[in-house]
Amino acid sequence: MEKLKKYISVKDEDHFYHQGAVELLIFNFLLILTILTIWLFKNHRFRFLHETGGAMLYGLVMGLVIRYVTKSSDVESGIVYECEKLKSGPSTLLINVTNHVYEYQYKREISHHNVHGHQGNAMLQKMTFDPSIFFNILLPPIIFHAGYSLKKRHFFRNLGSILTYAFLGTAISCIVIGVIMYGFVKAMEHIGQLKQWEFHFTDCLFFGSLMSATDPVTVLAIFHELNVDTDLYTLLFGESVLNDAVAIVLTHSISIYSPKVNPNAFDAAAFFQSVGNFLGIFAGSFAMGSSYGVITHLTKFTKLCEFPMLETGLFFLLSWSAFLSAEAAGLTGIVAVLFCGVTQAHYTYNNLSPDSRMRTKQLFEFMNFLAENVIFCYMGLALFTFQNHIFNPLFIFGAFVAVFIARACNIYPLSFLLNLGRKQKIPRNFQHMMMFSGLRGAIAFALAIRDTDSQPKQMMFTTALLIVFFTVWVFGGGTTPMLTWLQIRVGVDPDEDLKTKAASQTASNLDKNTTKAESAWLFRIWYGFDHKYLKPLLTHAGPPLTSTLPEWCSPVARLLTSPSAYGDQLKDGDTDYIINNDELTENYESSAHIPVPAQDRIGSIQATGKEDIQEGDLGLGGYKLQLQHTAGQPQNNSLA
Amino acid sequence: MEKLKKYISVKDEDHFYHQGAVELLIFNFLLILTILTIWLFKNHRFRFLHETGGAMLYGLVMGLVIRYVTKSSDVESGIVYECEKLKSGPSTLLINVTNHVYEYQYKREISHHNVHGHQGNAMLQKMTFDPSIFFNILLPPIIFHAGYSLKKRHFFRNLGSILTYAFLGTAISCIVIGVIMYGFVKAMEHIGQLKQWEFHFTDCLFFGSLMSATDPVTVLAIFHELNVDTDLYTLLFGESVLNDAVAIVLTHSISIYSPKVNPNAFDAAAFFQSVGNFLGIFAGSFAMGSSYGVITHLTKFTKLCEFPMLETGLFFLLSWSAFLSAEAAGLTGIVAVLFCGVTQAHYTYNNLSPDSRMRTKQLFEFMNFLAENVIFCYMGLALFTFQNHIFNPLFIFGAFVAVFIARACNIYPLSFLLNLGRKQKIPRNFQHMMMFSGLRGAIAFALAIRDTDSQPKQMMFTTALLIVFFTVWVFGGGTTPMLTWLQIRVGVDPDEDLKTKAASQTASNLDKNTTKAESAWLFRIWYGFDHKYLKPLLTHAGPPLTSTLPEWCSPVARLLTSPSAYGDQLKDGDTDYIINNDELTENYESSAHIPVPAQDRIGSIQATGKEDIQEGDLGLGGYKLQLQHTAGQPQNNSLA
Repeated sequence: MEKLKKYISVKDEDHFYHQGAVELLIFNFLLILTILTIWLFKNHRFRFLHETGGAMLYGLVMGLVIRYVTKSSDVESGIVYECEKLKSGPSTLLINVTNHVYEYQYKREISHHNVHGHQGNAMLQKMTFDPSIFFNILLPPIIFHAGYSLKKRHFFRNLGSILTYAFLGTAISCIVIGVIMYGFVKAMEHIGQLKQWEFHFTDCLFFGSLMSATDPVTVLAIFHELNVDTDLYTLLFGESVLNDAVAIVLTHSISIYSPKVNPNAFDAAAFFQSVGNFLGIFAGSFAMGSSYGVITHLTKFTKLCEFPMLETGLFFLLSWSAFLSAEAAGLTGIVAVLFCGVTQAHYTYNNLSPDSRMRTKQLFEFMNFLAENVIFCYMGLALFTFQNHIFNPLFIFGAFVAVFIARACNIYPLSFLLNLGRKQKIPRNFQHMMMFSGLRGAIAFALAIRDTDSQPKQMMFTTALLIVFFTVWVFGGGTTPMLTWLQIRVGVDPDEDLKTKAASQTASNLDKNTTKAESAWLFRIWYGFDHKYLKPLLTHAGPPLTSTLPEWCSPVARLLTSPSAYGDQLKDGDTDYIINNDELTENYESSAHIPVPAQDRIGSIQATGKEDIQEGDLGLGGYKLQLQHTAGQPQNNSLA
Repeated sequence: MEKLKKYISVKDEDHFYHQGAVELLIFNFLLILTILTIWLFKNHRFRFLHETGGAMLYGLVMGLVIRYVTKSSDVESGIVYECEKLKSGPSTLLINVTNHVYEYQYKREISHHNVHGHQGNAMLQKMTFDPSIFFNILLPPIIFHAGYSLKKRHFFRNLGSILTYAFLGTAISCIVIGVIMYGFVKAMEHIGQLKQWEFHFTDCLFFGSLMSATDPVTVLAIFHELNVDTDLYTLLFGESVLNDAVAIVLTHSISIYSPKVNPNAFDAAAFFQSVGNFLGIFAGSFAMGSSYGVITHLTKFTKLCEFPMLETGLFFLLSWSAFLSAEAAGLTGIVAVLFCGVTQAHYTYNNLSPDSRMRTKQLFEFMNFLAENVIFCYMGLALFTFQNHIFNPLFIFGAFVAVFIARACNIYPLSFLLNLGRKQKIPRNFQHMMMFSGLRGAIAFALAIRDTDSQPKQMMFTTALLIVFFTVWVFGGGTTPMLTWLQIRVGVDPDEDLKTKAASQTASNLDKNTTKAESAWLFRIWYGFDHKYLKPLLTHAGPPLTSTLPEWCSPVARLLTSPSAYGDQLKDGDTDYIINNDELTENYESSAHIPVPAQDRIGSIQATGKEDIQEGDLGLGGYKLQLQHTAGQPQNNSLA
């Protein structure tokens, strides 16, 4: 008898176990289908469906099947047990059932109104995975990859505009969506649709902040494939990367805004607390991420590059540690990992062995590819498998209206303001394209699914999901026609604009513009500091510290400078640097303080251009990664 | 008030969440430490501590710290609640505690005597992760990588011996350990140490089967670094890879052996059921794995290789699907993924684009590296954080004795038998080295931790853990001295023996030996079939099917043959093949039926040799991966 019972319990566990396998197998199967479909599309040069859109579509179909074909199997759940002995919910619970002790693990708190959802279907429950998986497993590689693969030169050239769109634009978008939604909510309350839910202005702002994270992955993939103008690409990419960070922190700050007395009245103390929280968390995460990026530079002093596997392992673990440390410290891991990626690309990448550079690049590319498709596939699934959807047509309609108005209020006024300062204006058709590229994606979804306890939050989640679907499919699919319609140049050589500019600069160096003098001054200080001190300290590149530091520092300087820095000071080490000296001079019209030999200037332009292609290449386009180049070329002098 | 409660609940969740981050951060930190230490050791050419040993050591120290420094925080757990309403343990439990509904997820059944272990320390609980993680996440990449990186030529040359050691050897080892342990258990019962535990002969056999999985990762790493004789390397590697598969299935079969009447008496029906189960599961997993490997060959007909990222993704997902399908079908995923790896390496690898070959290789290398270190690190941790250790000195002593006797009964008699048939004998010092290399590692640990419900199983787990520690540190550390002491040649060029052999063969082709005629006959049939039909069907290599299939099949054959197969039939396509024709002839002394042009013979030997170095290279040794070679050389003809 004892044996038999044990046998049954083993069988039971096996059942649980195999269910997990089936569930993962379904995901695998969906991803395989997606890959095959996308290959078919790519092969026939259909560009209206990106792999993320395909993943979403298959997820949707599978969700439909699971929802309506599988049967309810677990009759016990859905029943709430009373437990008078417990005072609070412990993390593990031991329960004695007919002389067997079972261990249960705390999962979450459920609102009363959610208890009798579709809890009965075990398959649905299994397919609904923990929201924290998004933030801990799936998003970090995507965000890190974005940071690690920023086209540095173009990014820093447009830094001012990108920061404006990312910070000011996201704030505008958040407030506009919040205000419009509050109007709709008030109207809904008026016609009695909201049945005494608590729906404050902060909830509307919360929705606004989570809907402000744009994710134009589909658009960017097409831009990349068609070689759309690099400045437009960089503006969009930079904006979307940074605005994710801003939106995540903003959402967190809004969610902790809790006025003491009346939730509808404005509470200055709570407001400033939230603002302080935003600034603190953003700055803290930035600092945490960058310092991990800088810590990795310690590889400079080791000969770790002789063991590429150890080096890759260390790189991977330190990058992940940046994320985890930020989380453990109560900051935002995603933001930390983004800036860690940017710092790694800027400093650490130079210290890596050629083998590790390629390994890390390919590894993160692959992880990004997989994670992105899993998220989009899951989004498709969630439409049918999520058990507490609240579809409210008026709210959904309001959200669509709000999102588009907010995008317009973000792009057009800011572009106008930026064009006042920019020498190279953002043309009208670029602005329209940016307006059009306000797709919502993984971050908005992850932020929305994080909190689905209350009914307003569930309604927001449903609405966010629908907006993601609509924008990814309709706008994502319409990118190529839109490009034609707006007459945006495609097939641009990333170096071309640079070359013409260099030529025009040599021809006429007259037109002086001083509107940006201040920013140029700031930027030049940072550039000089980075070039003279940080680069030599953290990498093998740049001039030796012995020549840049004051003389009394020379013993320390000699210790910290890489031996390879002496040989070829300004020769090649700086070619992948954020900006070339001539560009700096040209963009900000101030006399260059750092002399660059003429022949090096050309060399560096070419080298940077070449690297750019590979950096932005997701391995999906027509390009093949030119391995020898990536591996050996740009830094071979400094490694010799 | 409502707000406040909500705020507290958010805080609570945050707390849970950050704990997870801290826990992962500890792991990251340990792995980083391990990498740095190992780098230091490698730099100074200390070979007595492999990274896995280092990871284990750091894990041990951290476990000690967590165990004795962190405090008990969760007072609620450890209390068992009675629940009369429940009939069985449902998968999720909703509990109403003071008007809050909490959802709990089923974790496991706990034996009554384990309830009052060290359940109180939340940190310990958090660090003890689910055993199924080993089987679902950590082991598959390790095992797949082993299959994918088999040195094919040498492996198939020693296939007979490897299969003998793996199947017969594991069975011998299992039975010998079982019998010896049963003796010890009886003795312990006699002196009253076992307090009425149920401890049957099958339990002893269970222990025997799980302790039969050898894992000489440390030894192999040193062998690789020092270029120890390739045959010895292959024998050990092949044995350890296959014997893992055998041990896993054997353990499962023994665990389901349940005689109906008296658990101590022999029940023929149950025995044959177990044997049938073993054969069924092994064959099923083999078939499942191989068929996934073959499915991947479909890439032959697509132009997927133009999109390396899609190709890599597909490859990865299909390999993982092999694992999941086997699990879902009630077979053994690990065995399936092993044979999937072997098949992929044999067929699919030829179809991949050069870029994907490198990507997949590096990806799996990296995953292997990470997973291996996590497991060994966790083993170190488990010694102090596992909450139900039972240390029994007599049992532990018995296990040590049994493991060594069993290893001896496996290696020496089987080597003697094999030497009767082998032309190239396994010398005495190789036998001693194999005896010495019977390290236990990840698989034994994973099998032991899978079931720790009853007290005998807990005692087995503790004992297995100690044996792993001892063998990895003592034997792993003693590998280099042992090699010197046994006078085993190091610094062997993998091609050298081949060249001498080829030379000696040309010189005197007299010595004919017919003891292995039968096996050669079998092997030749398989070789011919594979070369003529499977290779051309599944890859771009080999002769075109149109020339190997009978004439009436020619329409089908033309459809299935890759266009590139026509040009260069026997030229280069087969260089990475399992065995060369001349080796086949030489090893099994039968006239070769497949003619090979003389100049090709030399070419193929060289090409194969070159590939070998890279295949076995874990990226940790002194070699750098020669990218151009791996990528382009061996198959460039067939890809052209």
